[in-house]
Amino acid sequence: MESKIAFLENAWYVAALSTELGAEALFHRKILDVNVLIYRKQDGTPVALRDRCPHRFAPLHMGKRVGDDVVCQYHGLRFDCSGKCKHSPHGNGQIPKASDVRSFPLVERDGFLWIWPGDPALAEASSIPDCSEYSRSPKSAVAHVYMHNTCNYELLADNIMDLTHIDHLHGPLINTGGKLSPLIPNVTEVDGKVVIRWDWLAEPAMPLLGEHLAEPKAPAKMFFEVVWHAPAVMRLRVGAVQGSDDFVKDGVVLFDYHIMTPESAMSTHYFFASTRNYLTDDAAYNEGKMQGMLGAFTLEDKPMIEAQQAEMGTHDLWALKPVLLSSDAGAIRVRRVLKAMIEAEQGARLRAVS
Amino acid sequence: MESKIAFLENAWYVAALSTELGAEALFHRKILDVNVLIYRKQDGTPVALRDRCPHRFAPLHMGKRVGDDVVCQYHGLRFDCSGKCKHSPHGNGQIPKASDVRSFPLVERDGFLWIWPGDPALAEASSIPDCSEYSRSPKSAVAHVYMHNTCNYELLADNIMDLTHIDHLHGPLINTGGKLSPLIPNVTEVDGKVVIRWDWLAEPAMPLLGEHLAEPKAPAKMFFEVVWHAPAVMRLRVGAVQGSDDFVKDGVVLFDYHIMTPESAMSTHYFFASTRNYLTDDAAYNEGKMQGMLGAFTLEDKPMIEAQQAEMGTHDLWALKPVLLSSDAGAIRVRRVLKAMIEAEQGARLRAVS
Amino acid sequence: MESKIAFLENAWYVAALSTELGAEALFHRKILDVNVLIYRKQDGTPVALRDRCPHRFAPLHMGKRVGDDVVCQYHGLRFDCSGKCKHSPHGNGQIPKASDVRSFPLVERDGFLWIWPGDPALAEASSIPDCSEYSRSPKSAVAHVYMHNTCNYELLADNIMDLTHIDHLHGPLINTGGKLSPLIPNVTEVDGKVVIRWDWLAEPAMPLLGEHLAEPKAPAKMFFEVVWHAPAVMRLRVGAVQGSDDFVKDGVVLFDYHIMTPESAMSTHYFFASTRNYLTDDAAYNEGKMQGMLGAFTLEDKPMIEAQQAEMGTHDLWALKPVLLSSDAGAIRVRRVLKAMIEAEQGARLRAVS
Repeated sequence: MESKIAFLENAWYVAALSTELGAEALFHRKILDVNVLIYRKQDGTPVALRDRCPHRFAPLHMGKRVGDDVVCQYHGLRFDCSGKCKHSPHGNGQIPKASDVRSFPLVERDGFLWIWPGDPALAEASSIPDCSEYSRSPKSAVAHVYMHNTCNYELLADNIMDLTHIDHLHGPLINTGGKLSPLIPNVTEVDGKVVIRWDWLAEPAMPLLGEHLAEPKAPAKMFFEVVWHAPAVMRLRVGAVQGSDDFVKDGVVLFDYHIMTPESAMSTHYFFASTRNYLTDDAAYNEGKMQGMLGAFTLEDKPMIEAQQAEMGTHDLWALKPVLLSSDAGAIRVRRVLKAMIEAEQGARLRAVS
Repeated sequence: MESKIAFLENAWYVAALSTELGAEALFHRKILDVNVLIYRKQDGTPVALRDRCPHRFAPLHMGKRVGDDVVCQYHGLRFDCSGKCKHSPHGNGQIPKASDVRSFPLVERDGFLWIWPGDPALAEASSIPDCSEYSRSPKSAVAHVYMHNTCNYELLADNIMDLTHIDHLHGPLINTGGKLSPLIPNVTEVDGKVVIRWDWLAEPAMPLLGEHLAEPKAPAKMFFEVVWHAPAVMRLRVGAVQGSDDFVKDGVVLFDYHIMTPESAMSTHYFFASTRNYLTDDAAYNEGKMQGMLGAFTLEDKPMIEAQQAEMGTHDLWALKPVLLSSDAGAIRVRRVLKAMIEAEQGARLRAVS
Repeated sequence: MESKIAFLENAWYVAALSTELGAEALFHRKILDVNVLIYRKQDGTPVALRDRCPHRFAPLHMGKRVGDDVVCQYHGLRFDCSGKCKHSPHGNGQIPKASDVRSFPLVERDGFLWIWPGDPALAEASSIPDCSEYSRSPKSAVAHVYMHNTCNYELLADNIMDLTHIDHLHGPLINTGGKLSPLIPNVTEVDGKVVIRWDWLAEPAMPLLGEHLAEPKAPAKMFFEVVWHAPAVMRLRVGAVQGSDDFVKDGVVLFDYHIMTPESAMSTHYFFASTRNYLTDDAAYNEGKMQGMLGAFTLEDKPMIEAQQAEMGTHDLWALKPVLLSSDAGAIRVRRVLKAMIEAEQGARLRAVS
């Protein structure tokens, strides 16, 4: 992996949505500064190879599918779906050493294609964050979407770890009317995950949820909870309930994931998915809600965060000495945990080399 | 101030035209590589702040006006018009140290908004170049315009300090028919200002002025005079007269200002204003003349100077060893004076630090 | 010559096609990172000057033709067609030392304008590659074309030196049905030229040529031969014949030139010319064939090679450790010969300086 900033490599990243990858396509995407080819075998299983022929560095996605193999369009080298060079049409057909293409562990689960950019020996599918709610819920209650952003992925993670921004950046449908910012959120760290949670009495609940409660205008208990997994995978739950303490059983809850994958130091793939415990058979509501979330993101979050990045230039956040607020607690914890993980990984790599 | 080349910081620069700044607007412009927010208080007085929230570096111009204050749209910090952070909605509302935004001295005068990027303690409004002719003249005889250029500001200043270019670059309406280039201009330096002046007998006067003389086709005395103030503020007077030595009383004279403000090392804000002592109540002539000047600039000067910059790349003029002509005398004097001022300022800053 | 990578300077490069240069035009093109002005004298002879006035670095192509001279549009310096500054309108008209513009040896021959970027004393027109077939053939059998590519010129040369790519990248009209790749080409080096040749029995010949043989579907002898001249001038002959060993007398043969001239390290001017020994009086066929070649190039070669460059970034080919195949033999020989020539030239320059 070549990159100008250090990324965590031994981690699962989302490479694409299941819906982005057609049966026949040679899909490609740059991930952690490396061009990656992704395609489905004839049985539907997706595979990921470096998108670069070892001969003359032609992109393999410009090539042809032949069964489960891919043939480079420039000089005809043929690779199987593990990246092994199977055929050279040149000379006596001998295949030179080092002709294999790097392959990446890739797992399709719950609507996401998870890739492991680091050492394949360390890739364990059991450590993929649990998004199984998207497979358990009916299709009419699930949506996945992809967005591209011209900024560093940590700024996007900060945005989710500090949800107080919704009262200042977003409209009344999804804000808390000023309830959130004064709260001191509860930040905990469990097994390398960082959890941030806000609980408050809403008067009334934010309309997005409140209109599905028995008494939309009456007070309701609400919470936000974000669970961060390295490097930038965040499960967000939002709930409102009246006359009970059990949000899931008696209230209305959104089960969202916000997942960022660095394309490069200054650009990011953003994957968002959502399901819920109400109106789960209403496909029209599902579509409308996703369009609304996408609109809020592309019209409000994205311009702000890209402008923030433009102002920061290529400077690191800490180099610019930001003023910190109580609402930054989760974002800062995440940045510290991630930094320690990256440094540990790089230290291990240096020790392995020396 | 952060920049790759050294700018003179303790100096008045034009940030904008008065007409560019609406009553309610959060106007922003990059000046000397720094993004600046400019807006009018409710009483109309303009103020300038760094366009960057100290919390997460969101641009403040994306925020909201509340009375004379501005509220960051990202997390709701509120600043008064002096840049002081007045309110944080977060936690217990305590405002962290270093939460203030830098403010810049800003003076509105004669149609320009003058900004002082350097040490505010040194900013004296009395040192702003005198453009009071634009306030004294009737509106029908005054025009201001803004232009953006993709080149270093010193090339634009050279262009005004060496007016011989008009005979080679511009059309017959505003050239001298070859009279200018053979003259040795008179260059003087007074109190840090550089003055260059050409006087000649025109046969006849340049049509732009000559058609307003008693005998347009007859000989006339003409002059050009440019007075340069650091860093790149130039007053240009052009006059023609017949049967007298008093241009202003008996002849026709243009009173122009050419003012350049660096956006960055390779881009420049260009402000131009003009008034005159003839047809001062003719608003249609006024409009037509400004359109003509603007056309000459954008179709003739701007392409040439941007092409010159493209050929020079990021090289300094002197590094490329230009061949110098007699007409360069004013431009070279200006470059030397400015260089000495910048070096003196940087030396003083180093001494202050050590 | 200023450039970030080392180019061979003492060599003939094609600067333009004869058809690109009108009688009155001030044509300009960047060659080896230097902007060059090219124009025809009144007698039609083309000349090449550095496209940069020595006074203030204005591009001379923005100026005016006066007889065989060119006048800078910015301040009026006038240069003759050898680059000598003949006139300054400034002051007493004295012309400063070092006011001349560099001129380049330029020869028009066979539809190409050949330029010598290096030491003029070493430029001998007799060393220009022989393209005289384009002057000997009737116009109805000759075509020249210009293309721009965003990649290093050596990748484009590799593409011609390894013609096996045609079976993988191009359609059936111009491929060999897999015959080419298994062959071990014959690579020789004669007087600094590198020659690569493939001979095979085609069953049948490639349709482009085969349809002009007596028996298009019957077997035919075929050959490809590329003769490389430094820095990137390649004569390509392609032939097919039946019942004879004499391709030119009894068969059909294409006489092509592929010529690359670096614009910069990462962009290249590509000149292609073609003639043939069949249907030589058929102008419509000539036009159609050239359109077909141009289509194959712009739709197939160009996207692949530009993608290859994008994947390589600014890395040198060898730094990326390419896997080599038998078909690379010619390209690698060319790269080695060229590298040795550049190093020898640079060594000679260093010795001359010390």
